Amino acid sequence: MNKMKIHDISYPISPNMPVWPGDPPVVVERVSSMEAGAGVNISRISCGVHIGTHVDAPLHFLRDGERVQNLDLHILVGDAVVLEIPSDVSLITAEVIRKAGLAAGTERVLFKTSNQERWKLAPEFQTDFVGISPDGAQYLVDMGVKLVGVDYLSVAPFNNSREPHEIFLKAHLILLEGVYLNKITPGNYMLCCLPLKLIDSEGSPCRAILMELG
Amino acid sequence: MNKMKIHDISYPISPNMPVWPGDPPVVVERVSSMEAGAGVNISRISCGVHIGTHVDAPLHFLRDGERVQNLDLHILVGDAVVLEIPSDVSLITAEVIRKAGLAAGTERVLFKTSNQERWKLAPEFQTDFVGISPDGAQYLVDMGVKLVGVDYLSVAPFNNSREPHEIFLKAHLILLEGVYLNKITPGNYMLCCLPLKLIDSEGSPCRAILMELG
Repeated sequence: MNKMKIHDISYPISPNMPVWPGDPPVVVERVSSMEAGAGVNISRISCGVHIGTHVDAPLHFLRDGERVQNLDLHILVGDAVVLEIPSDVSLITAEVIRKAGLAAGTERVLFKTSNQERWKLAPEFQTDFVGISPDGAQYLVDMGVKLVGVDYLSVAPFNNSREPHEIFLKAHLILLEGVYLNKITPGNYMLCCLPLKLIDSEGSPCRAILMELG
Repeated sequence: MNKMKIHDISYPISPNMPVWPGDPPVVVERVSSMEAGAGVNISRISCGVHIGTHVDAPLHFLRDGERVQNLDLHILVGDAVVLEIPSDVSLITAEVIRKAGLAAGTERVLFKTSNQERWKLAPEFQTDFVGISPDGAQYLVDMGVKLVGVDYLSVAPFNNSREPHEIFLKAHLILLEGVYLNKITPGNYMLCCLPLKLIDSEGSPCRAILMELG
């Protein structure tokens, strides 16, 4: 492996991050503290699994869907394209994706949208984020895409969550939500997004990176 | 990126995993359940950050040490060697490492030991696991290694935890603990271990993989 450049596209996990309305709160706390006289520092985390940068497994919306521990690492890792969506687009439709120039054979696509401005309003959760319409979801499925990434907390708009999720998850696409693309130039990368190996969960927070191979 | 083979070396996260004595319990629970009539499944996780496959940051043992969110991704990702340690070895000393044949210039090394048998005794935590002695730790620092991986829950033996940790962490090595190497053939790989981007934590669970590039 030659020298490579690595870009972190993960949103920081802390009590100050925006979370989906009704989700469990994010707690990161010291349960053993050297400042308080303990020999070591030890922290505990408590959170919902759909926080920040995370993946959805089919079980999230499908009663008998696959668990997150079974998602294919060969889809979670590999060539990816970051596509820029114009800042005046509020819904990613099939037409928007066509105009953005999704190439045939693309297996992983991340959409960079005006959502990057919404992260700046943290910790308040923004309901007007840009998501993918049902026909946009179907277009990506028909194009043979295997992983779809979005830059806020859901692939689907706030007021129409179910249909796009179901279209994607029934077709076994992996959904990577909450990537932080503010500093990323659109183009081609190697994506590596690794959810925790949580057993019996429908999703997991993950660290996600984009690599430029030398 | 050509075709590659990916090996998962992460231990499953569940209430049935062995945890360090005194650490917070591992909880993975459904807080919204389709079986119970909800529209979606949503899970919550609660755990200490030093469970299963995880990384230690210097703050774990050093009062002013670096936080996990600042660990260098260029160390967490890159060429690595898996070195086999004979099954009759109970402590990884400098001499053991020399005999195992650590090559000059190695930046990331994972030790495969008899600990693989100890995982089979889960959920009970095993105190007699194989760890690295202080002189072994110093040898690895002197060799210029930047990341050390071990196949049970600590780099250091149960009865001498502090000294090896301090030697490693003062030298800014990244410690990858709890890797699951049972199915891994010793040799050369590309390692990718990605801790969560937890803010102000001294460690994090992570997903870790070994890749064979085509």
